[in-house]
Amino acid sequence: MHPHLLSVDSLSRDHVDHLLRVAARMEPIAQRRKVTRVLEGAVLGNLFFEASTRTRVSFNAAFCRLGGSVCDTTGFTFSSMAKGESLYDTSRVMSGYCDAIVMRHPEQGSVAEFAAATHVPVINGGDGPGEHPSQALLDLYTIDKEFTRLGKSLADAHILLTGDLKYGRTVHSLIKLLSLYAPMRLTLVAPPGLEMPSHLVDLVSDRGHRVEQRDTLASDFRDLDVVYTTRIQKERFTAEMSEGFSLSRDFTVDRVFLDQRCGRDTIVMHPLPRDSRPDANDLDVDLNGDPRLAIFRQTDNGIPVRMAIFATLLEVESLIERDLRDVRWFVPAKFGVDDAAF
Amino acid sequence: MHPHLLSVDSLSRDHVDHLLRVAARMEPIAQRRKVTRVLEGAVLGNLFFEASTRTRVSFNAAFCRLGGSVCDTTGFTFSSMAKGESLYDTSRVMSGYCDAIVMRHPEQGSVAEFAAATHVPVINGGDGPGEHPSQALLDLYTIDKEFTRLGKSLADAHILLTGDLKYGRTVHSLIKLLSLYAPMRLTLVAPPGLEMPSHLVDLVSDRGHRVEQRDTLASDFRDLDVVYTTRIQKERFTAEMSEGFSLSRDFTVDRVFLDQRCGRDTIVMHPLPRDSRPDANDLDVDLNGDPRLAIFRQTDNGIPVRMAIFATLLEVESLIERDLRDVRWFVPAKFGVDDAAF
Amino acid sequence: MHPHLLSVDSLSRDHVDHLLRVAARMEPIAQRRKVTRVLEGAVLGNLFFEASTRTRVSFNAAFCRLGGSVCDTTGFTFSSMAKGESLYDTSRVMSGYCDAIVMRHPEQGSVAEFAAATHVPVINGGDGPGEHPSQALLDLYTIDKEFTRLGKSLADAHILLTGDLKYGRTVHSLIKLLSLYAPMRLTLVAPPGLEMPSHLVDLVSDRGHRVEQRDTLASDFRDLDVVYTTRIQKERFTAEMSEGFSLSRDFTVDRVFLDQRCGRDTIVMHPLPRDSRPDANDLDVDLNGDPRLAIFRQTDNGIPVRMAIFATLLEVESLIERDLRDVRWFVPAKFGVDDAAF
Repeated sequence: MHPHLLSVDSLSRDHVDHLLRVAARMEPIAQRRKVTRVLEGAVLGNLFFEASTRTRVSFNAAFCRLGGSVCDTTGFTFSSMAKGESLYDTSRVMSGYCDAIVMRHPEQGSVAEFAAATHVPVINGGDGPGEHPSQALLDLYTIDKEFTRLGKSLADAHILLTGDLKYGRTVHSLIKLLSLYAPMRLTLVAPPGLEMPSHLVDLVSDRGHRVEQRDTLASDFRDLDVVYTTRIQKERFTAEMSEGFSLSRDFTVDRVFLDQRCGRDTIVMHPLPRDSRPDANDLDVDLNGDPRLAIFRQTDNGIPVRMAIFATLLEVESLIERDLRDVRWFVPAKFGVDDAAF
Repeated sequence: MHPHLLSVDSLSRDHVDHLLRVAARMEPIAQRRKVTRVLEGAVLGNLFFEASTRTRVSFNAAFCRLGGSVCDTTGFTFSSMAKGESLYDTSRVMSGYCDAIVMRHPEQGSVAEFAAATHVPVINGGDGPGEHPSQALLDLYTIDKEFTRLGKSLADAHILLTGDLKYGRTVHSLIKLLSLYAPMRLTLVAPPGLEMPSHLVDLVSDRGHRVEQRDTLASDFRDLDVVYTTRIQKERFTAEMSEGFSLSRDFTVDRVFLDQRCGRDTIVMHPLPRDSRPDANDLDVDLNGDPRLAIFRQTDNGIPVRMAIFATLLEVESLIERDLRDVRWFVPAKFGVDDAAF
Repeated sequence: MHPHLLSVDSLSRDHVDHLLRVAARMEPIAQRRKVTRVLEGAVLGNLFFEASTRTRVSFNAAFCRLGGSVCDTTGFTFSSMAKGESLYDTSRVMSGYCDAIVMRHPEQGSVAEFAAATHVPVINGGDGPGEHPSQALLDLYTIDKEFTRLGKSLADAHILLTGDLKYGRTVHSLIKLLSLYAPMRLTLVAPPGLEMPSHLVDLVSDRGHRVEQRDTLASDFRDLDVVYTTRIQKERFTAEMSEGFSLSRDFTVDRVFLDQRCGRDTIVMHPLPRDSRPDANDLDVDLNGDPRLAIFRQTDNGIPVRMAIFATLLEVESLIERDLRDVRWFVPAKFGVDDAAF
């Protein structure tokens, strides 16, 4: 595997398959039936130059569950960078302290620049409008795991991506990963001005997938396997764009949409967080408790997938099985009160 | 035990007794003579939406001393909640990452709302004017431990609560816990306008305790066993209330008060932090070094009590004795330079 | 050893020698060939009242590599201190939670005041214009280690200190430590107004070292063993001082200076961070990749030196050799892409 994980573009089908297999082997640990200490003594530098509590805690917990220790940094500035330190120096210094580095930064390309100065494995935890490869991997892992449960396969699957397809880096990375697999049917529904960039539509078409673009959810999607909906990343907009833009309720995925336009086992995904405020035009809360709502199984999958990323980059994936012990503390049968029992 | 620890109201006398017994069994670890790794592999989400360094570090250290790993979050906003994420979603997402969650939040009821969405044990680390049950438990544990040392018993004890009894949630929770025990004598001394709420006075009276309310410390308290003094939580006041309010030195507990009006083994407690600035009207620093000043033994007790809370919620309390090893590093005979040698 | 590490002034030659020997024994762990768990169960309070991400992570990682757990606090205020809590109370409270404490604080003397209230070992991680003893120790350790590699000795070494010698606490502490060793030649080059304080020049002279002071780097230094350059700590200046002050390029150490005025094995050191912005008048980036540039080996040395400080204060240095295990995860042969292969 490449020494860093900076972009899904660097991942071959074989790489992705390997990561998904390793993630599946992490499930007993992620589900807290087993404990491993394989990374005991290793130190993760978890560098968040941009706030993202969820992603930070997910990487942190994944590293801890492999037995390692984590040094977190948060806040928009690294104190030494405020004093004019280059990313080159910061990277090289942190490399002397840590065995692996997760970095999130608001500027596109900054994580790659950081990674260029070090041989310590660096994972891109999101670089502004750029990449967030672990999110794409956990999304793909979720689809694969849900399909296995439902007896489905990626071949000929019908996946709907909707919401902000222009600025949502999540859907860009996911569509690239999906394109590596058996030909499937991808329907892209976005309001005018927020369509999927054409080079990505072309890439997916060129790889043999059927792509259809629409500007409304008011259609029949009864053969849908997955609805992947994204929120409008308002912070990506300039003031002018926001002014002229208003999302109608037509783009909201809710119980009515799912009951009337989708199948009985269509799963609903979302990269989270979702905006649950009134008039947010985000995934509706009326699906909470519906077993088709896979968003929390999806976020749960962040743990085995990030464990797999660490285990693969640090080359311990073959050591873990030998190192497992039973969990000794209380673990609830279901983590959430509305979790489906499959 | 209840799957969460949200309020002292949910605790029966049996629950409290069990927690205190488990805390006592944690003492060899808390005093750093022994080490356990019983929670190795477990992850605590230590979520502080309101700054409270002391409480955060205390929970963190307690979990570490059981062998677990801790993911801290600090700061008034959770980045995803700033984007409109509901407590329901935040709770369910964190439940997929963590084995236990401590949450502190400025809004009353928020921790209970958070806990309602998860089966992972949640501990209320303070929700504004609401509850802070681990503080009340460590206060009760301190009284019990000091009484054992002094050959006293809770039955017929005389406990003085003074300071801000209206807004101090600490004294509200403590008085509820005390009321579960053998009838005792409670004297409540507060300036006008800051008296203990009447429903709490009634509750304690109804349970058979003798309650006396006064508006001055200028009395004879020679049979006092405990003086529990609290600071004025100025941040709880509105601007108007602050204006019209001034505490006289008559409410300050100091060496003169203790020597002239209390007994030789009256212990002094305080929830800390105390305001040591001049004119703060808080517990005087002239008692530093006096063995009757129990405030640092009290804060030390936060470790075994919080270990007991984790051990009980995570159901490992019976495993710890088998798992003890000797500490190998230097541990000072006394932690503080003024600590009494008992 | 003294129970705290507050200042290099408290360190005898024997203390320093012992620390350097222990640091050398930590190298297999610091270089990630070996793992120890000797501090398993111990808790470090890593209290940063002033931002210093690098120093914080370095102490954190060093403690983790000994097997301990770390509770970090960051931010300019401790929440309880903002409410009027004294350093005495904060210190005593933290002593009940932690086995060792690192403290960084913007006010000179504050760490010593904090340490005076506790028997738990306290390490000064920098107190404003005061002391930062672990930096001085890692600087000395670096010189010693580089000299061993080059077959040199401290006796008769020629060391150039340049930059801001008035406000740079790093060079003050380093020169004190160097003065404990065999007579050497120290050349001090600073712009007018930023010279080394005369009491330090006197101290070093009195201990038998040859000291020469100059106001320009435009000289022949072909027999130099070490160039130690520091940045201008602009945040130490008052507005007026900054106004009247401008550093010429004459004080910049770069490849031309090193090639024309130094020897083939002169090493270049810097306490970091360096300001890499144009016109920063700091150590030039054109030396990146040059094996004489020791700045990243120097910062790497922070790990074994800080491990040695912890191991010595916590009296576990003799236990570590028995406790070593092999690292099982991937470790790059070189941490940085430009690291020299010696």
